[in-house]
Amino acid sequence: MADEVILLETQFSPFAARVRIALAEKGIQYEAREEDVTNKSSLLLQMNPVNKQIPVLIHNGRPICESMIIVQYIDEVWNHKSLFFPSDPYQRAHARFWADYVDKKIYPIGRMLWSSVGEAKEASKKDLIECFKILEGELGEKPYFGGDGFGFIDVALIPFYSLFYTFEILGNFSMAVECPKLLEWAKRCLQKESVSLSLYDEHKSYETALFMKKKLGF
Amino acid sequence: MADEVILLETQFSPFAARVRIALAEKGIQYEAREEDVTNKSSLLLQMNPVNKQIPVLIHNGRPICESMIIVQYIDEVWNHKSLFFPSDPYQRAHARFWADYVDKKIYPIGRMLWSSVGEAKEASKKDLIECFKILEGELGEKPYFGGDGFGFIDVALIPFYSLFYTFEILGNFSMAVECPKLLEWAKRCLQKESVSLSLYDEHKSYETALFMKKKLGF
Repeated sequence: MADEVILLETQFSPFAARVRIALAEKGIQYEAREEDVTNKSSLLLQMNPVNKQIPVLIHNGRPICESMIIVQYIDEVWNHKSLFFPSDPYQRAHARFWADYVDKKIYPIGRMLWSSVGEAKEASKKDLIECFKILEGELGEKPYFGGDGFGFIDVALIPFYSLFYTFEILGNFSMAVECPKLLEWAKRCLQKESVSLSLYDEHKSYETALFMKKKLGF
Repeated sequence: MADEVILLETQFSPFAARVRIALAEKGIQYEAREEDVTNKSSLLLQMNPVNKQIPVLIHNGRPICESMIIVQYIDEVWNHKSLFFPSDPYQRAHARFWADYVDKKIYPIGRMLWSSVGEAKEASKKDLIECFKILEGELGEKPYFGGDGFGFIDVALIPFYSLFYTFEILGNFSMAVECPKLLEWAKRCLQKESVSLSLYDEHKSYETALFMKKKLGF
């Protein structure tokens, strides 16, 4: 029997994009179901009753939640090609550390930049640029964070490329000036179809950010 | 050549306790180095320049940071006995989900309970009890979160037993009343030497919490 794979997602979520990229990298056919985050489906609430968030991967009826946990699951189940993880435990820990850094920093600080004004906004802009510079330092001269191949850290970070334009407009800075090598890395990733077809358009991301900002009254 | 294993830690950190438990479960000899969190050693700053936090495991000169990443590393490197992870990818994802839940909820909400007053304190007390009840629901009738054996979620959560007394006093509630099965689980874990010898004393934890509260002026 063929695997039944369903992804509960929204097109604009960078967290959902991680899963789309992982599925595309592995060549897995799946059914994408767009969720309305303001009116969550009963299936989403049933499949992720604890966090009630997308993305959720439903594999043969069983839910897997949290984007990077889903990516690891995909890597472990469909292990016939392009593993996102190196085999060496130290390199695996290293990849997990940086994916965790992306999770703890980019979205929370980006959200602060989006939702704040005045000094708090300036501080979050400064923090965000610093994080990108730290990530650029970790990238170094490698083509990908994973080395020669696209790996776990790359999957974790590249979906935020969709928000670079939003960050730049909100914070009045230029990624090309602040982090040119990180931008080159992003363009390199975008040459992969698994990435380019999975990412939400940067201008639509900005429109969505503005729309949500108005709706929530920031 | 024997492995050189050094743990940069503090006795009272539940995150360091996770690593102590994992090392003890695997029977690994190591050198524990107590850090002064108000005056971090140059070794700590050198080994974890990004987060500058304990615990850091230094294995043959190479640092591994972030407690649950260290636990996974230990499980992958010393894989001769008592694996914390099930072999099935779905069960592994499940274990990762709940360890992540513990990470995102217990310490941040416990810290809020510790540092707030009035309505914010009441709200965090309610949130904390709700989280413990959700965890108790996940435990169900199993002896451990890992099923019949002590596993990844157990390692993630049990160090917070040291703070149950502090939470109870600060929040004026009783774990025995609110979550009796979770308390039974904790006592079951404490029968293991790897746990009982790794956990910080609950009364000392409370004294430390009060001392830090005064010092920081909450």
